[in-house]
Amino acid sequence: MSYRVLVLHGPSLNMLGQREPAIYGSTTLKDINARLEAYANAHNTTIVAQQTNHEGMLIDWLHSAVDTYDGVVLNPGAYTHTSVAIRDAIAATGLPVVECHLSNIHAREPFRHTSLIAPACLGQISGFGWRSYILALDALLGHLRARDQNNS
Amino acid sequence: MSYRVLVLHGPSLNMLGQREPAIYGSTTLKDINARLEAYANAHNTTIVAQQTNHEGMLIDWLHSAVDTYDGVVLNPGAYTHTSVAIRDAIAATGLPVVECHLSNIHAREPFRHTSLIAPACLGQISGFGWRSYILALDALLGHLRARDQNNS
Amino acid sequence: MSYRVLVLHGPSLNMLGQREPAIYGSTTLKDINARLEAYANAHNTTIVAQQTNHEGMLIDWLHSAVDTYDGVVLNPGAYTHTSVAIRDAIAATGLPVVECHLSNIHAREPFRHTSLIAPACLGQISGFGWRSYILALDALLGHLRARDQNNS
Amino acid sequence: MSYRVLVLHGPSLNMLGQREPAIYGSTTLKDINARLEAYANAHNTTIVAQQTNHEGMLIDWLHSAVDTYDGVVLNPGAYTHTSVAIRDAIAATGLPVVECHLSNIHAREPFRHTSLIAPACLGQISGFGWRSYILALDALLGHLRARDQNNS
Amino acid sequence: MSYRVLVLHGPSLNMLGQREPAIYGSTTLKDINARLEAYANAHNTTIVAQQTNHEGMLIDWLHSAVDTYDGVVLNPGAYTHTSVAIRDAIAATGLPVVECHLSNIHAREPFRHTSLIAPACLGQISGFGWRSYILALDALLGHLRARDQNNS
Amino acid sequence: MSYRVLVLHGPSLNMLGQREPAIYGSTTLKDINARLEAYANAHNTTIVAQQTNHEGMLIDWLHSAVDTYDGVVLNPGAYTHTSVAIRDAIAATGLPVVECHLSNIHAREPFRHTSLIAPACLGQISGFGWRSYILALDALLGHLRARDQNNS
Amino acid sequence: MSYRVLVLHGPSLNMLGQREPAIYGSTTLKDINARLEAYANAHNTTIVAQQTNHEGMLIDWLHSAVDTYDGVVLNPGAYTHTSVAIRDAIAATGLPVVECHLSNIHAREPFRHTSLIAPACLGQISGFGWRSYILALDALLGHLRARDQNNS
Amino acid sequence: MSYRVLVLHGPSLNMLGQREPAIYGSTTLKDINARLEAYANAHNTTIVAQQTNHEGMLIDWLHSAVDTYDGVVLNPGAYTHTSVAIRDAIAATGLPVVECHLSNIHAREPFRHTSLIAPACLGQISGFGWRSYILALDALLGHLRARDQNNS
Amino acid sequence: MSYRVLVLHGPSLNMLGQREPAIYGSTTLKDINARLEAYANAHNTTIVAQQTNHEGMLIDWLHSAVDTYDGVVLNPGAYTHTSVAIRDAIAATGLPVVECHLSNIHAREPFRHTSLIAPACLGQISGFGWRSYILALDALLGHLRARDQNNS
Amino acid sequence: MSYRVLVLHGPSLNMLGQREPAIYGSTTLKDINARLEAYANAHNTTIVAQQTNHEGMLIDWLHSAVDTYDGVVLNPGAYTHTSVAIRDAIAATGLPVVECHLSNIHAREPFRHTSLIAPACLGQISGFGWRSYILALDALLGHLRARDQNNS
Amino acid sequence: MSYRVLVLHGPSLNMLGQREPAIYGSTTLKDINARLEAYANAHNTTIVAQQTNHEGMLIDWLHSAVDTYDGVVLNPGAYTHTSVAIRDAIAATGLPVVECHLSNIHAREPFRHTSLIAPACLGQISGFGWRSYILALDALLGHLRARDQNNS
Amino acid sequence: MSYRVLVLHGPSLNMLGQREPAIYGSTTLKDINARLEAYANAHNTTIVAQQTNHEGMLIDWLHSAVDTYDGVVLNPGAYTHTSVAIRDAIAATGLPVVECHLSNIHAREPFRHTSLIAPACLGQISGFGWRSYILALDALLGHLRARDQNNS
Repeated sequence: MSYRVLVLHGPSLNMLGQREPAIYGSTTLKDINARLEAYANAHNTTIVAQQTNHEGMLIDWLHSAVDTYDGVVLNPGAYTHTSVAIRDAIAATGLPVVECHLSNIHAREPFRHTSLIAPACLGQISGFGWRSYILALDALLGHLRARDQNNS
Repeated sequence: MSYRVLVLHGPSLNMLGQREPAIYGSTTLKDINARLEAYANAHNTTIVAQQTNHEGMLIDWLHSAVDTYDGVVLNPGAYTHTSVAIRDAIAATGLPVVECHLSNIHAREPFRHTSLIAPACLGQISGFGWRSYILALDALLGHLRARDQNNS
Repeated sequence: MSYRVLVLHGPSLNMLGQREPAIYGSTTLKDINARLEAYANAHNTTIVAQQTNHEGMLIDWLHSAVDTYDGVVLNPGAYTHTSVAIRDAIAATGLPVVECHLSNIHAREPFRHTSLIAPACLGQISGFGWRSYILALDALLGHLRARDQNNS
Repeated sequence: MSYRVLVLHGPSLNMLGQREPAIYGSTTLKDINARLEAYANAHNTTIVAQQTNHEGMLIDWLHSAVDTYDGVVLNPGAYTHTSVAIRDAIAATGLPVVECHLSNIHAREPFRHTSLIAPACLGQISGFGWRSYILALDALLGHLRARDQNNS
Repeated sequence: MSYRVLVLHGPSLNMLGQREPAIYGSTTLKDINARLEAYANAHNTTIVAQQTNHEGMLIDWLHSAVDTYDGVVLNPGAYTHTSVAIRDAIAATGLPVVECHLSNIHAREPFRHTSLIAPACLGQISGFGWRSYILALDALLGHLRARDQNNS
Repeated sequence: MSYRVLVLHGPSLNMLGQREPAIYGSTTLKDINARLEAYANAHNTTIVAQQTNHEGMLIDWLHSAVDTYDGVVLNPGAYTHTSVAIRDAIAATGLPVVECHLSNIHAREPFRHTSLIAPACLGQISGFGWRSYILALDALLGHLRARDQNNS
Repeated sequence: MSYRVLVLHGPSLNMLGQREPAIYGSTTLKDINARLEAYANAHNTTIVAQQTNHEGMLIDWLHSAVDTYDGVVLNPGAYTHTSVAIRDAIAATGLPVVECHLSNIHAREPFRHTSLIAPACLGQISGFGWRSYILALDALLGHLRARDQNNS
Repeated sequence: MSYRVLVLHGPSLNMLGQREPAIYGSTTLKDINARLEAYANAHNTTIVAQQTNHEGMLIDWLHSAVDTYDGVVLNPGAYTHTSVAIRDAIAATGLPVVECHLSNIHAREPFRHTSLIAPACLGQISGFGWRSYILALDALLGHLRARDQNNS
Repeated sequence: MSYRVLVLHGPSLNMLGQREPAIYGSTTLKDINARLEAYANAHNTTIVAQQTNHEGMLIDWLHSAVDTYDGVVLNPGAYTHTSVAIRDAIAATGLPVVECHLSNIHAREPFRHTSLIAPACLGQISGFGWRSYILALDALLGHLRARDQNNS
Repeated sequence: MSYRVLVLHGPSLNMLGQREPAIYGSTTLKDINARLEAYANAHNTTIVAQQTNHEGMLIDWLHSAVDTYDGVVLNPGAYTHTSVAIRDAIAATGLPVVECHLSNIHAREPFRHTSLIAPACLGQISGFGWRSYILALDALLGHLRARDQNNS
Repeated sequence: MSYRVLVLHGPSLNMLGQREPAIYGSTTLKDINARLEAYANAHNTTIVAQQTNHEGMLIDWLHSAVDTYDGVVLNPGAYTHTSVAIRDAIAATGLPVVECHLSNIHAREPFRHTSLIAPACLGQISGFGWRSYILALDALLGHLRARDQNNS
Repeated sequence: MSYRVLVLHGPSLNMLGQREPAIYGSTTLKDINARLEAYANAHNTTIVAQQTNHEGMLIDWLHSAVDTYDGVVLNPGAYTHTSVAIRDAIAATGLPVVECHLSNIHAREPFRHTSLIAPACLGQISGFGWRSYILALDALLGHLRARDQNNS
């Protein structure tokens, strides 16, 4: 089967590569999107990737994904720890969403250990740099294939 | 007397009707606005209703209401529990604002029991589905009439 | 349809009018009951209003309402924040109960922001002085009419 | 030996059978008292059972039990979690008291995990429906017999 | 001047003398009332003393004191730590109330260190056995005399 | 009907009798097992009793009980307050488990008031010395008989 | 009998009369000492009063009181809420100490509700302005007389 | 040397002058910008000042400042207490940022005492009305001059 | 390159397939190991998989892996939330460890949101059923290949 | 106008230059005082600077400043987080006090984020090394000039 | 006199020397045991040293020490912070136990500051590397000698 | 080598022997100093011992030790739990400091379990009566010798 996946990057992820390489590595967001694209192509999947620093824009995009995409890979960035609104937006769409993080958020400051968004997601992957995105896409595709086999 | 009231709907309320009907019912936002309109017309009141997923937009609209409206009916959605900025914006306008919620937020998860916005509002109504809005408008009009009778 | 509604006033509400007018206004409990009565009459509804300072008496009255009333408007006063027993009594009756408060409890001291009783109620209205009661009765009647239309 | 035991039922236990059978079963308070009576008769014991929704009444009855009863089986209901006054009343009587609960309070909402009353009691039994009362009576009789054997 | 003072004893204080003498001494409530009476007589004051185990009754008595007494000496017993309703009742009366305790509540279990009632009282005296009452009456009379001298 | 019951004793319960008699009494674990055996024999029940200081061993035994026993009497000792793993093991077996304690854990240090294990158990009995075990076995048998009567 | 009492005033009490009169009144420390002196003279008692802003000095004086005084009236001021050292110093002396406060510390900011010093004191009196000192001295003398009568 | 400084005003600061003058004074944002401009001109510095109610916009502007400005003066308004995203955006830019506030946030409600943003800033200045901005600009220039002298 | 990987399954994972299928699915541990084996074979990797209910055994196995394996895939089960000892054991080995969970632990009870073990791990994957293990192995291999390419 | 300002340095500030230069820089207290002196001279102001490690001494000096100084620049050092007494001393003097810190206390350990002293101060400046003092003096002078212009 | 001492090393201490030398140094467990042995020989003492990663095994060994040893030197490793069971096991044995740690646990992460085990121990020594063990043995011997001199 | 060590005794330690012997034993401070002196003499070490009740004095002495002593043995007494200032003073001196306590502070009231001073110390010894001091001196000398051997 062929799937369409929306990839959403949250606040400050546009700064990747310039930003604190000791924590986040030197890969840029463009690099990550290119790798996701290549992986998607090789697995019969179309992706669209978007970045924003606005909490409300992430919500707008989640809503508009309802009829266009089969699922979402979401890195909510710092909104992970403060946004009830994104969590409610995910629940409202009913789409399967995989949450991912470049760094291992559970090994950083205590306020980064809690995800307000996780309860509305399929699962969470954190700590593997740019590979977190590939793993998240892979996890989403695995979920979609299993669901569609059960339903067929 | 005749009043002008601004009705503000917060994040994901545009999804109403599609969204988790077990919690929020099958009424759409358009239905709610129509009922508010009808109620307003019957009570010599003009309303304008707007929805946004952006915290900053809610603040912009509150500010711009200062010279145009007599009061505000506000459903801040998930921002109820996380936004000090909306609370300060209400205080800055000096307008009477009634906070309302479709579901009984005090009967849901603990993090939904606290409203950061309530201290800047006239009062709060929660738990009556679309009727929460009519009750809120009614409460606002009651407040405005009492104030204007005392001042006249 | 015609409905019977029990109105319960909790501790110290008998002192209304004498008591801290800066917070609670100068309306007396007798005034409130008269306004409720007038509103009820105009809406084909019978009300009985009772006041007590005893937590146990509120529970007794809630229990005995089961076969006599269609719903309850309850202002639990200070027991709002300390009584698990009233919450359990409401759950035990299965009656629709609307919780109301004269002042906006969410804008006062932090210990008044939490209602132990709300999880067993239909909804909560707070902050509109004596109008909170009228709004609560209106909310209850709206709920009863909708329920009976769905069931018929 | 022959013993006299006071059985006290706290708030809303008079509603048993009508009340949320998924949690509390369909047995009524009258049924429970009859079973306790039968068990007591078979074990050379007299019981008196009383129910009240009033915290103060539970205290009155505990005080008056001092010269009349050998011990108390107490289901404090929702007062378990909020009443320091009942705890102090038990300490004041010096009587052995066994606390019991129909449902397993430690498996319900967190605020039901804490008993303010337990520190003044012999022990606590919770989670076995009407059998919690029989077990509590049995535990009390076991305690009384052991005490009297040691003293004799 | 001559004053009328209401003395209110809360839950389990009727058990004084029988109850845990290591903490509360062997004086009975009757003894305390007699000493208060003697002291009052010697200071041109009339007192009435009442005891109850019911939170609601304490509130009833506080309310009815408004036109009959100049002030209240109140030992709220265990309700000190759990009753917002008594605190609100004191505020509603507007009478000067002195809170007193036989034992030093600040030196016992942590949950006894907090008085929900103190914010509505003139002051608090705790730890002097029956003398706490005499000191409380003395404190109340001092306050009344100072107030009346300022007003005359 | 005839039942097979597994009795599990947690850490340091092998020290009973030598260990702090002021809290736990002078009865040994062998005595308790003998009394349980006698009680079981008189009620058409087979028991096997085992003790270990190892959390993992308690889990092993719970797992292996699935096909061999009808229910479990469990005194988790100090693991009551720290073991999520035992709680999950009970849930995994699906067997009815009654939690019991020699001392009244709700009357000791605050950290002993919380049982992480209780949410997976039928009920909890604490505070009656060796009789807690007999009461727990009795509670389990009562549950099994009621279940089997309903199913037959 | 005749007694010697040390009166200790803690930090900033030397500023009395100049300092926030809305809370503390216009009486100076000199006035308070004069009134204490007069009261002491009338009751066969010698007092010495001292003030310091140094936590360490309060401790020195408490230590040196051991052989010279029969008891202490102590207003620890702001150290009330932060000083474990003064509490230990009181315990070390073995002298009866009465803690007093001008304002009702339990009715002010939450951090003033906790006294670290109270557990080592006979009792606490707060909220009666300068009369708090007279009441404290009275309470101390009552205690000393009762103790000496029992010992004689 | 000559510097370029970005001045960012957060939510509701556009309302200055209209908004709660008791807390914020009667100066408008335009006045503040004019004073900053004058000060900057006199110190060989160029400033650009911008205001927004949108959290995401503040992040956009911080990012785009990287190659254009030497530092930032930031008044995050209510986002000070809720935005991890702005903190991360500052860290991502690597620019020196001085946080400033009109009112003394540490002397207001407790939830305003914590700045989530401060850990990523050079320093914080709060409580001096419009002068807070001048002091902040001054502090930033002092820092830049010292840094450049060390590097030259 | 070719790698050797140790797969460790924690408490109650041996019950998989029998255990609460609504949460954990019907796949058995044997199935998971077979799928891991197949995946490993296809990627030039050798795996050994072991399960235990004993915290200490997990630590023993981690220690003994130091010279034998290139990395570890670890599902610590319920010990995730209570074991500092496993965290320290991981730090002691210096091996790269990927933590994985069948269910999305961040969407379950609050006490399951915190991993004491995560700070010592490379990253965490949770919520994808048996696929969590494949993703974890994939993440580990990605890490090992990247590390070895950098070192070569 | 000409002003007299007291500069108070709290505990361990005499060690400046020797003490953790990574946090506090290599400037000595003498250097800071010299720079303050120079700045004061250039702005028609007299300063006296004093340092102490004694909490009580800071309080003495604050008290004695009442008639001699127009305001105070205070670096309370570690007492910032524990001293209610200094806060009360500031309130007692009625003098305008500006709190300052060398390091950005809001970016260090959590216990340094709370200032018990701030509520009694005009404002707070932290994080600019020795320049914090100059900024604080500048802020104080700005406040004094504005106050005197309004009063003249 | 001659003493027999059991030395117990908890989880991961077998890894000493390989494990994080920056925190724990390069000494191995074998080295520590040899130094303890030498010290014991020189002080007329026999020691046996054992290491385990199993919480239950530490409990087994403590129990079996009752009749064989005069006291225990215990480094509970990571179980220090999570094991109520070891604490209860120590209390059950009645043996004097000295708790020791290589690193200064009070200067590391906050969750390492609390020892659940300390309340059952004679005392605690932490932070001196391998010398902590010698000091602990020395402390234990000092205690034993003092006890035996008092008893003889 | 020969060393000079400063021994500092905090508040109320001068009362040793008179003070709560159940907790602290009957040894006086003079005895402890004599034993320390003897031990020091036997190990080629000079000690000076000082006691104060003043927090500030401890800080002065720590500062002045920089050039005169090789290390410090410090019993901070009650300041252990409240003094950030002493901790900073230790950090400022750069001297090795060993913290010691007569009683096992971790086995007493919860507020004594936290040492604010420990993070700046080499290590902590508590619970061995006067022997705690000898052990502390021994620990300090061990550290100094190891350091000097490494440097030579």
